[in-house]
Amino acid sequence: MKNLSDLGERRAIKLISNILSKDKVAVGIGDDCAAFDFRENYLLVTTDMISEKTHIPKIMSPWQIGWFIVAINLSDIAAKGGKPIGLVLSLGLPKNTSEQFLIDLMKGADKCATKYNTTIVGGDTKENDKITLCGTALGLVKKDEFMSRKGAKPGDIVAITGTLGKAAAGYYAFKHGIKNKETLKGFLEPNPRIKEGIVLAKTKLVTSSMDISDGLSSSLYQLQDLNKVGFEIDEEKIPLSPTLLKLKGKQDFDLYSNAIHFGGDYELLVTMPKNTFKEAQKTIESTGNSLTMIGRVTKGKKIVIKNKDKIQTLENRGYEHFIKRAFY
Amino acid sequence: MKNLSDLGERRAIKLISNILSKDKVAVGIGDDCAAFDFRENYLLVTTDMISEKTHIPKIMSPWQIGWFIVAINLSDIAAKGGKPIGLVLSLGLPKNTSEQFLIDLMKGADKCATKYNTTIVGGDTKENDKITLCGTALGLVKKDEFMSRKGAKPGDIVAITGTLGKAAAGYYAFKHGIKNKETLKGFLEPNPRIKEGIVLAKTKLVTSSMDISDGLSSSLYQLQDLNKVGFEIDEEKIPLSPTLLKLKGKQDFDLYSNAIHFGGDYELLVTMPKNTFKEAQKTIESTGNSLTMIGRVTKGKKIVIKNKDKIQTLENRGYEHFIKRAFY
Repeated sequence: MKNLSDLGERRAIKLISNILSKDKVAVGIGDDCAAFDFRENYLLVTTDMISEKTHIPKIMSPWQIGWFIVAINLSDIAAKGGKPIGLVLSLGLPKNTSEQFLIDLMKGADKCATKYNTTIVGGDTKENDKITLCGTALGLVKKDEFMSRKGAKPGDIVAITGTLGKAAAGYYAFKHGIKNKETLKGFLEPNPRIKEGIVLAKTKLVTSSMDISDGLSSSLYQLQDLNKVGFEIDEEKIPLSPTLLKLKGKQDFDLYSNAIHFGGDYELLVTMPKNTFKEAQKTIESTGNSLTMIGRVTKGKKIVIKNKDKIQTLENRGYEHFIKRAFY
Repeated sequence: MKNLSDLGERRAIKLISNILSKDKVAVGIGDDCAAFDFRENYLLVTTDMISEKTHIPKIMSPWQIGWFIVAINLSDIAAKGGKPIGLVLSLGLPKNTSEQFLIDLMKGADKCATKYNTTIVGGDTKENDKITLCGTALGLVKKDEFMSRKGAKPGDIVAITGTLGKAAAGYYAFKHGIKNKETLKGFLEPNPRIKEGIVLAKTKLVTSSMDISDGLSSSLYQLQDLNKVGFEIDEEKIPLSPTLLKLKGKQDFDLYSNAIHFGGDYELLVTMPKNTFKEAQKTIESTGNSLTMIGRVTKGKKIVIKNKDKIQTLENRGYEHFIKRAFY
């Protein structure tokens, strides 16, 4: 009999999807958010759980824990082009949690919500052995602006917002006792790309979109599986975060491997027709962020990565729950 | 410095409510659901978390765990008169959880959702040391049919759907190794009162409503606090479940104490003008359930319970997280 560590998170999700009764919901399991028909809009819903063991390193302050659970939920709304309308937050906390911890946690959660023009509207507080938080975010997006995970076509280009490697660099700093605040923030205080998602959605150019929560390689493999396409990625075009670049030359630390496989950056990964990229890029630049073309959608189902010397298959080494492939 | 076991769940919720930024949300923290303005409707959102330590006794099957997390979330939608439109479900599970456990869990969750004409539309699956599940349910209710926790007025009558003591009887059976399936189900497979909530809401007679998740006494104290009213409850009018009545005469087991304080019955507790009770009762009877008048809303802020012999203050002994007052 198999257990979840044999199965892995993504096969577990497929198993669940096969069990559940289907309804007339517009978008169900397998995308960043579920979506309900609401006249001209979709109502987006997404939920994410974190716990001490997998997401809350000792170095994370209560304020950062609160920020984090809100940020990662909003990131899924961002990936669909949604405008957040509110969140609910369930807190599972040990009995001996201090009042100050709760105050700081909620201040961090509130700060992240208000930064992205939304609020926490409700929740639940329960006793738990270990800190376990569960957020659910709601958002709205016009139906014709919704950015699905499905739709990438051979010939489309692949692009990402911002830079990769922020979380990997922060994790390295944490592991090696480097107390650089900016570097650590890349790991502990991710920024959901709400503005970027909204302006990209309005262009109606995007053929598929998801957030890079579990790493670029993992995200590409998920898009491949859904769209029955391949990808060709130009390694040298991947924009590396300044904090990652500072770690150049560190022993046993490959910049590109970390940027590609580590996860935790919460940038948006999108595809679009090649001739529309410049327009989309300009739109993203209007938000103060960047959009970088890193490759192409191809026929077949291979995912390859090119650098000066060679083309090789991109390994699927991103983070997956129950099976730990990557750097954690 | 205080910690959560000094503070208790309800004071923790007040603390959280004071920290959070307020938005234009129609109903925020302090009711069974948050509510957003959606043209002529409110969109209802509620979230509930359960974990091994507090809600999942060893006797509960994986199927029942799945049923339970869906049922308790739907119960909050029911209490507002809402029609459920969908749920998302986050699963925190240990690595060594078997595939069969996951299958059974999701079958139970799906069964409960479909029984109440809704579906599970998404979720999250994460590794956790202990089983921790978090559900979020969404529902819709016409604005003028929404049943708030606020609105009880002196002179109104107090009524409950169904019977109390089902969960207490099931818990007693569990503790004493009594293998009566029907009795155990009262504790392990609660039924959210969706139909009852919908028909009651349509009458527009209800002045306040909540579900009795933490026991009648606890629920009355919450309504007292919100409405600045008192209650006078007639002990003998409280409808006891057949499974509880079977335990009559058991040593150290008081039927009424259990019916009043134990919690876990998920019936609806409502108030309404006295002269409208018959109409509401008839409406509930059309669903196959019952509505029983158990007391009155009074001026002042005392909650008293009357029986043949005497009137006394009703103790607030319902279940509260972090502080365990009752029978668990």
